[in-house]
Amino acid sequence: MNIHELIGELKEANPTKIVLLVADGVGGLPLEPGGKTELETARTPNLDRCARDGVCGLSIPVLPGITPGSGPGHLGLFGYDPLQYRIGRGILEALGINFQVGSKDVAVRGNFCTLDAGGKITDRRAGRPTTERCVAMVEKMRSIRIPGVELFVEPVKEHRFVVVFRGEGLGDAVNDTDPQTTGVAPLTAKGADTASAKTAEVVNKFVAEAGKVLAGDAPTNGVTLRGFAKYPKIGTMQEVYGLKSAALAIYPMYKGLARLVGMDVLDAGTTLKDQVTLLKKVWSQYDFFFLHYKYTDSTGEDGNFPGKVDMIEKLDAAIPGILELKPDVFIVTGDHSTPSKMRSHSWHPVPTLIRAEMARTDAVTEFNESACLSGGLGQFQAMHLMLLAMAHAGRLGKYGA
Amino acid sequence: MNIHELIGELKEANPTKIVLLVADGVGGLPLEPGGKTELETARTPNLDRCARDGVCGLSIPVLPGITPGSGPGHLGLFGYDPLQYRIGRGILEALGINFQVGSKDVAVRGNFCTLDAGGKITDRRAGRPTTERCVAMVEKMRSIRIPGVELFVEPVKEHRFVVVFRGEGLGDAVNDTDPQTTGVAPLTAKGADTASAKTAEVVNKFVAEAGKVLAGDAPTNGVTLRGFAKYPKIGTMQEVYGLKSAALAIYPMYKGLARLVGMDVLDAGTTLKDQVTLLKKVWSQYDFFFLHYKYTDSTGEDGNFPGKVDMIEKLDAAIPGILELKPDVFIVTGDHSTPSKMRSHSWHPVPTLIRAEMARTDAVTEFNESACLSGGLGQFQAMHLMLLAMAHAGRLGKYGA
Repeated sequence: MNIHELIGELKEANPTKIVLLVADGVGGLPLEPGGKTELETARTPNLDRCARDGVCGLSIPVLPGITPGSGPGHLGLFGYDPLQYRIGRGILEALGINFQVGSKDVAVRGNFCTLDAGGKITDRRAGRPTTERCVAMVEKMRSIRIPGVELFVEPVKEHRFVVVFRGEGLGDAVNDTDPQTTGVAPLTAKGADTASAKTAEVVNKFVAEAGKVLAGDAPTNGVTLRGFAKYPKIGTMQEVYGLKSAALAIYPMYKGLARLVGMDVLDAGTTLKDQVTLLKKVWSQYDFFFLHYKYTDSTGEDGNFPGKVDMIEKLDAAIPGILELKPDVFIVTGDHSTPSKMRSHSWHPVPTLIRAEMARTDAVTEFNESACLSGGLGQFQAMHLMLLAMAHAGRLGKYGA
Repeated sequence: MNIHELIGELKEANPTKIVLLVADGVGGLPLEPGGKTELETARTPNLDRCARDGVCGLSIPVLPGITPGSGPGHLGLFGYDPLQYRIGRGILEALGINFQVGSKDVAVRGNFCTLDAGGKITDRRAGRPTTERCVAMVEKMRSIRIPGVELFVEPVKEHRFVVVFRGEGLGDAVNDTDPQTTGVAPLTAKGADTASAKTAEVVNKFVAEAGKVLAGDAPTNGVTLRGFAKYPKIGTMQEVYGLKSAALAIYPMYKGLARLVGMDVLDAGTTLKDQVTLLKKVWSQYDFFFLHYKYTDSTGEDGNFPGKVDMIEKLDAAIPGILELKPDVFIVTGDHSTPSKMRSHSWHPVPTLIRAEMARTDAVTEFNESACLSGGLGQFQAMHLMLLAMAHAGRLGKYGA
């Protein structure tokens, strides 16, 4: 029996409220051996009080040593096995630009590339064009028409764009046309099954038409496509947990991931303060609230240790506003670590706390990597966090008599 | 390869003795944040000495956040994946009253209900009759005869009873007849396959006959049935581990669970002292001894914190009597937590110790929730405990060359 079937049997409704605050990439590393991490450096009196009142531990996003992207990182936190539920790159790119993907869509990530006179790739990123140029080139491709499908071309950034093919019976088992090297032509799309062959035919027509409309636009005179993907079949938070769920996120990617699991995606403004204000406003309307805080990740990605410390302290300052609402279960965690030292996502386990009346408190009095190591939650798989959230909310009945 | 297949390859016989002492529901919670749990409050010099001499940790009965009933809780401790081996309610109810279920039996839990003149349920628990009345009503139903099957009707308590249908080719994929609401008639039984259709036919006849014999006995003039279940196919402790196993339990449910995995269920008397006396008597006859202690759970269920503390101390006092026998492996754990604060089973991990010569001892010197957090066993799934028991007993060979 898988976990969602188990929850299906055990879930119970009640009026409790659960808040999941995701500080993206919150886990870190010391810059020097023996030093302090970003969380250990930051002054976090409010998070520390929650750690003291609740139970702490470390979340392993996927498996030990596995560094997740935002997709698997968040799916795990929402209780969806990130090794079972895979979200194709095309879908993630579409979610990231807030494109509302539907069930008849195949989405794919596109790159502008430079083609020589023989049609061979000389630069896989077309000399990294400006985003303005990207927008202009996309505009040209929007004139392309292919019978039988609806076509959406959307700019992302620099050489990156998204194409969505909308039509009946399109499959997504289509190879990337990006050969991942130069000196060769882009690959022809082929489908691995009948539905995907139909997609491949459309794709090859699209690439040929793009070649025509971009012919005079070197270095952005060609395109490659990779990560053909349909919208995955995935139960909603309402279906899986019986939780009416709201997402209070600012960035499109996280809104998209929340929409993927059926949360209501609210217009949460542009700051953490906006998010907390909205949380208060809609408090009575939902059971579950996903708050996403981006800046612990982006400062980490920038390699900006003091900046990340500062963003952690700003997050800490917002905690009392959330606690005023008296959530029955308040969880603080991250979707992965983003150590400033590494300037990237990492596999390191993520400090996590659960504050709830029935939490078995431990000796942890600070919210950081080393303190959480001795916490009562131990080290656990992120995909089990929602089981703990539901249990502490009194929303899971007994398994077996 | 599943765990039992692995053990099948690796198990080795030797003359070691393993004692598994299950203090039912032993884990707890402080009544107030920052306070002590029942185990932390109790004076337990003998358990503490075992913790100091051995290795400690915390057992997760099923998965994080999942609260098990006694069935899954014990199956896990016996090393049977509680998500794979599911025991139907009917079987558990039958085990709970010490009814010896066989392979041709379908067992089901029955409730007396009150029917109005139109055959609709007005009270799903028949006004909670006394157990004496339950016994009298069951006696009436024992007169029912149905051709082709043997019928057993057994009282449980108040409105609850058990029916066992014994016959060739009976399936258990039969819906509950309890509609879980009032104002409607009990449901007709239907079978999802041929064998279960045969059961359903018998069940409907039984219900009709019960209606006749109870017709004048309002408010106990009807019955509903739920949890049709056959005896699960499950390897015995002898088959899985090569362990000749004895159960020294007092309550029927735990005797039944032990019988389910093929243990010899001994007549262990009525007190812990009786159990230890019997343990000494049969010491030479078995490899594995399951001792069950109920009162840490029942006091927890009653919300009786000082009572649970007292029962823990009484258990502690029995430890020297067990250690006199010099078991090679001595394990103390629980099937789940039952915090007095919650008056119910819970999901919280369960303090566990293993005392054995080859245990890698840790710094733990007390047997309780917070001390076990830093133990050498870490937090582990209950279904892995028997692997540790077998290993510490020198009964598991090397896996692979």
